[in-house]
Amino acid sequence: MSKLRACVLGATGLVGQQFVRLLHNHPKFELVTLAASSNSAGKSYRESTEWAMEGTIPDKVADICVIETRLDEIVSNNVDIAFSGLPSDVALDIEAGLASKGVHVFSNAGAHRRNPSVPILIPEINPDHLNLVNFQKFGAGFIVTNSNCSTSGLVFGLKPLMKYGIKQVFVTTYQAISGAGKTGVASMDILGNVIPYIGGEEEKVEWETREILGSLVDGSVRPAEFDVNASCARVPVVNGHLESVVIRLSEDVGTEQIVSDFESFAGEPQNLNLSMAPGNPIEILNQEDRPQPVRDLTHDNDPHGMAVKIGRVRKKGLYLNFYLLVHNTMRGAAGASVLNAEYALSRGHLRGGE
Amino acid sequence: MSKLRACVLGATGLVGQQFVRLLHNHPKFELVTLAASSNSAGKSYRESTEWAMEGTIPDKVADICVIETRLDEIVSNNVDIAFSGLPSDVALDIEAGLASKGVHVFSNAGAHRRNPSVPILIPEINPDHLNLVNFQKFGAGFIVTNSNCSTSGLVFGLKPLMKYGIKQVFVTTYQAISGAGKTGVASMDILGNVIPYIGGEEEKVEWETREILGSLVDGSVRPAEFDVNASCARVPVVNGHLESVVIRLSEDVGTEQIVSDFESFAGEPQNLNLSMAPGNPIEILNQEDRPQPVRDLTHDNDPHGMAVKIGRVRKKGLYLNFYLLVHNTMRGAAGASVLNAEYALSRGHLRGGE
Amino acid sequence: MSKLRACVLGATGLVGQQFVRLLHNHPKFELVTLAASSNSAGKSYRESTEWAMEGTIPDKVADICVIETRLDEIVSNNVDIAFSGLPSDVALDIEAGLASKGVHVFSNAGAHRRNPSVPILIPEINPDHLNLVNFQKFGAGFIVTNSNCSTSGLVFGLKPLMKYGIKQVFVTTYQAISGAGKTGVASMDILGNVIPYIGGEEEKVEWETREILGSLVDGSVRPAEFDVNASCARVPVVNGHLESVVIRLSEDVGTEQIVSDFESFAGEPQNLNLSMAPGNPIEILNQEDRPQPVRDLTHDNDPHGMAVKIGRVRKKGLYLNFYLLVHNTMRGAAGASVLNAEYALSRGHLRGGE
Amino acid sequence: MSKLRACVLGATGLVGQQFVRLLHNHPKFELVTLAASSNSAGKSYRESTEWAMEGTIPDKVADICVIETRLDEIVSNNVDIAFSGLPSDVALDIEAGLASKGVHVFSNAGAHRRNPSVPILIPEINPDHLNLVNFQKFGAGFIVTNSNCSTSGLVFGLKPLMKYGIKQVFVTTYQAISGAGKTGVASMDILGNVIPYIGGEEEKVEWETREILGSLVDGSVRPAEFDVNASCARVPVVNGHLESVVIRLSEDVGTEQIVSDFESFAGEPQNLNLSMAPGNPIEILNQEDRPQPVRDLTHDNDPHGMAVKIGRVRKKGLYLNFYLLVHNTMRGAAGASVLNAEYALSRGHLRGGE
Repeated sequence: MSKLRACVLGATGLVGQQFVRLLHNHPKFELVTLAASSNSAGKSYRESTEWAMEGTIPDKVADICVIETRLDEIVSNNVDIAFSGLPSDVALDIEAGLASKGVHVFSNAGAHRRNPSVPILIPEINPDHLNLVNFQKFGAGFIVTNSNCSTSGLVFGLKPLMKYGIKQVFVTTYQAISGAGKTGVASMDILGNVIPYIGGEEEKVEWETREILGSLVDGSVRPAEFDVNASCARVPVVNGHLESVVIRLSEDVGTEQIVSDFESFAGEPQNLNLSMAPGNPIEILNQEDRPQPVRDLTHDNDPHGMAVKIGRVRKKGLYLNFYLLVHNTMRGAAGASVLNAEYALSRGHLRGGE
Repeated sequence: MSKLRACVLGATGLVGQQFVRLLHNHPKFELVTLAASSNSAGKSYRESTEWAMEGTIPDKVADICVIETRLDEIVSNNVDIAFSGLPSDVALDIEAGLASKGVHVFSNAGAHRRNPSVPILIPEINPDHLNLVNFQKFGAGFIVTNSNCSTSGLVFGLKPLMKYGIKQVFVTTYQAISGAGKTGVASMDILGNVIPYIGGEEEKVEWETREILGSLVDGSVRPAEFDVNASCARVPVVNGHLESVVIRLSEDVGTEQIVSDFESFAGEPQNLNLSMAPGNPIEILNQEDRPQPVRDLTHDNDPHGMAVKIGRVRKKGLYLNFYLLVHNTMRGAAGASVLNAEYALSRGHLRGGE
Repeated sequence: MSKLRACVLGATGLVGQQFVRLLHNHPKFELVTLAASSNSAGKSYRESTEWAMEGTIPDKVADICVIETRLDEIVSNNVDIAFSGLPSDVALDIEAGLASKGVHVFSNAGAHRRNPSVPILIPEINPDHLNLVNFQKFGAGFIVTNSNCSTSGLVFGLKPLMKYGIKQVFVTTYQAISGAGKTGVASMDILGNVIPYIGGEEEKVEWETREILGSLVDGSVRPAEFDVNASCARVPVVNGHLESVVIRLSEDVGTEQIVSDFESFAGEPQNLNLSMAPGNPIEILNQEDRPQPVRDLTHDNDPHGMAVKIGRVRKKGLYLNFYLLVHNTMRGAAGASVLNAEYALSRGHLRGGE
Repeated sequence: MSKLRACVLGATGLVGQQFVRLLHNHPKFELVTLAASSNSAGKSYRESTEWAMEGTIPDKVADICVIETRLDEIVSNNVDIAFSGLPSDVALDIEAGLASKGVHVFSNAGAHRRNPSVPILIPEINPDHLNLVNFQKFGAGFIVTNSNCSTSGLVFGLKPLMKYGIKQVFVTTYQAISGAGKTGVASMDILGNVIPYIGGEEEKVEWETREILGSLVDGSVRPAEFDVNASCARVPVVNGHLESVVIRLSEDVGTEQIVSDFESFAGEPQNLNLSMAPGNPIEILNQEDRPQPVRDLTHDNDPHGMAVKIGRVRKKGLYLNFYLLVHNTMRGAAGASVLNAEYALSRGHLRGGE
């Protein structure tokens, strides 16, 4: 089978650059189209992009001529699949339009997440939610989203414990500046500081977590029934959202059992050996002062940072406490959508390119 | 009345320097003795101290000859009162020894905090706990401690709400590096990073909070009955501990009432107009992204940073969430002990110097 | 004499806020008008400004209704004097327009600095350059500028040594992020990083330094004859530009003499006891690792940070090396223009308000 | 030929960990012995080391039992070659002792650098200096050092220009905290700050640069004749020393020629295709705001960061200015010594292991 023809939307932004980095050499997807705002259109990717990833722009894509993010332009490139790193306001129409034209859209934007037939997919967590695309009315294509970056870590800390009955979840975040994009956080605001507010973030975490961990009933998601209470703050860290999690479980389970549940957790991406899938979706760090953003995001066996790292698992009376770390621009953004596409492909949801 | 003769223990460290800054010009206390380790003894304060406060060492104290932290040396200076910025292991014996010799010790060290007759005093919160000194057996003097730095902020967020019945408290901290002293945190560990562990801190917050908010019954403290669950982390901020607080109350109280309770809260230091007392012990910040360490620690009406700042008060179902900010080296350390001494003096507990 | 009626242009920006902070309580100037972009016009200063200074907006000015930066609007307020914190492109016309209407403009913008009859004034350094205003053709008013922020420090390190014959100057800077305004430097670009480029800065330092230190001959400035070689970089520091300076002098002068020349340097603002003038324009710091931005910008005797701090004065063969620190938003921006206005007033160049 | 048996001295420190990372899988050297202080001796490397490199300790070495840094202990392990990451005071005797016992020592310590028969070797720059070992009197082994970290970058900016006659060099540094080791710089000193002093650094740069670029005459180095003037400061950057360089050349050479000389520069390690050698020892970055520590230390074609990056090459009258970036713990420390050992091996200076 030949590769699927892929497009990146918002290709010059931070998330877009991550998509380019992950896709320029992908075994299943051929990166053929890069779309961005009208400022960039008509220039080569090299000229139009202030590359913020390590190293230099991959040669293969540096000379691609960037096109404007317009439906007709993109469709005329015969793309099978689109990866969207667009801001939500821009994403709404263009993503729907692409789906109507038969393109399969994997989006990091929040624009369609509240649409009941658009899955917020994490293949290790809720693979069956992918079936929601059968209920979409966009046309021949569909839209699959990944979750908000903080949520993408939290659900890994919860899923393996659902069998014990989760009654209540508290999460307090220490979020990296890259979550706000290349120019989202001014240095005057964050250097040596903490900002205890991220617009809309707490609501997203509280709603998406229950949605992703909900069950699929008659073609729609019935949210998980526990309450999620989130407090979100920005810290002067470049990459990696750290989260302090406190959970009340129905059953009294010991720390060792919890740790064992985390370590043995795996899902379909692991079974299918998908290329973006980490060997272990959850890794336990045993040193008392880990996980830490600058030390634990990636390592030799998790070069993309797709594993969620958990440490300091401890019981405090009725509550279970731990810290988790998620790579916000990988597991929480571009990496998540690429994994979603790989999973959809393996499940037979993607056609084209033959 | 002449001023009381005061000594600072651990005078060259960060907390010791704060004591010196607050006392060199104090209306009630005369700073006559500076004690430090044997390295510094015999040198002038200027020579022995790497001054880390803003500006330069006050002229008045710069030429004082530092003495070694030995009981006989200190006592021979006829000091009435000692302010201790010692590390806990050093503090244990010397503080007890000073108390036995009739010196009144106001200590930032944790060494004696677990002694049931040593008050952890915050005059706005538990002024009656000062009476515990009557049960001390050290001798003619006594020891009064201030709380751990994180706890010193948290209790202000709880005290005004106790009338509604606090059932459960969760606190997650973003703590400044100055809390670990001048060389406590290596830059390689914290630059662009978060360290989700501070040795012993969570236990201190959980225990001290209930103790400070407990009631005095028959000469001992009966701890407050609610549970406190703490998660403590270090962030790359110089001064100011930020805390995310979630509380479950017995009564259903609206946000406006809570805010009003915070704003109207005052205690004896305000009534007595003590010089270290802030006009309002709690200040509400209304902007949605405050309080922030670099912007809100001090201001023209709170030059010492003794007021606890609270923002983002919000209800989430059964829970009340807010963020608070406390100046860890002032309200959480040196400033707290100076206020305690002022309060003890006003209550007639300090003699000498007449 | 009643106070002069003063206006701040660009009042909501960082430099504008510094102007407001310095002027709201000034003995000679009455802050009556705040002008900003059309977004802010019609709102109170409190509503329109994200206050980035310590503490809160002074009560006196918080309720002033901000007007739009239009010539007719400003002039209709009968202002005698305007302080400009405008970006250069906006400053060009409006400053000239105000001068034509009789307003005396003290500007931090670079727009008119290259005009041969507009002085770049630093009253301790080149007070006679103020006479250039007599050659201006704007109208009844005039324009006086302060220098670029890096230059404002460098010239203090050079002026006292000119008597020894300066042959060559090298300067390499470590510049704070506040120099680029509230949102000028994105945190993704500077956190844990150094950016070895600041657009136009090296040219400004090289040109302005020779201009300021030049002599006034027949109504125009003859630049100083030595060469200035500048390398400018941005570092993750909030306030305070540090500069490494290397000078070749014609005469062989010892380090002690140099230090003595720095320490004894004073100018007309000191003689006139102007309110923004520091007691000593240059302060020598003796510790081997100073000056440092976080420790040495301000102190009790220099609360505004108007003194330039110099340390590590050392000879290396034919060259003289030292480090200097200048408060970029005070001596290098707002503070400089306020001092210029005070000086112009004392010299009889300002009329109005009687 | 079997591999040479290698030892790392100071194996638990930052430089020692870099040695371990580079050697655990090396084609020519077999890492058999790890030596550290008595605290670590007797424990496994995993237990004794707070691993500060990315990822986890390589499995191969994690279980090696660390021995104490004592001559007899190390020698009894039959090591052929030792890599030293020791502090200078400890290095002096043990390195000399090992050389006397036939071990070939490649050292990052400064202890023996001033010994006229100990080369400060950089194989691209002064390969012939390796011959100095023939004049050493330690015994059957020898000592080869790498240069100070700042010097290791500077000489690459000078060597290709020596043909034009260098008359004078000025260098001002922005040095990373890792240069001072794991706990060398306290966070309270550097967060949001610059420290304009690094003990002994300027003298090292000034002396070593002329030494390395000197010529070998009759068994000793005749230093290069130009003057080097250094100003060294610490900035809040984790890895990567940035240096602002100004040079006066005898000949008037255009910028394009200089850039071309840099780009075409190569040395024996490139000809010999040594495994630590970068493809191009010098890389020119064309964007006007590069090189930057967080973006340019390593890339896909320079994974170890052994290439020195140069940007902003510009003429200013008689002077040539540029910025260079060197990876201080690789090209400036561990990587340098491993490359030295590879080069010495290729030149036939290392025996053993057959």
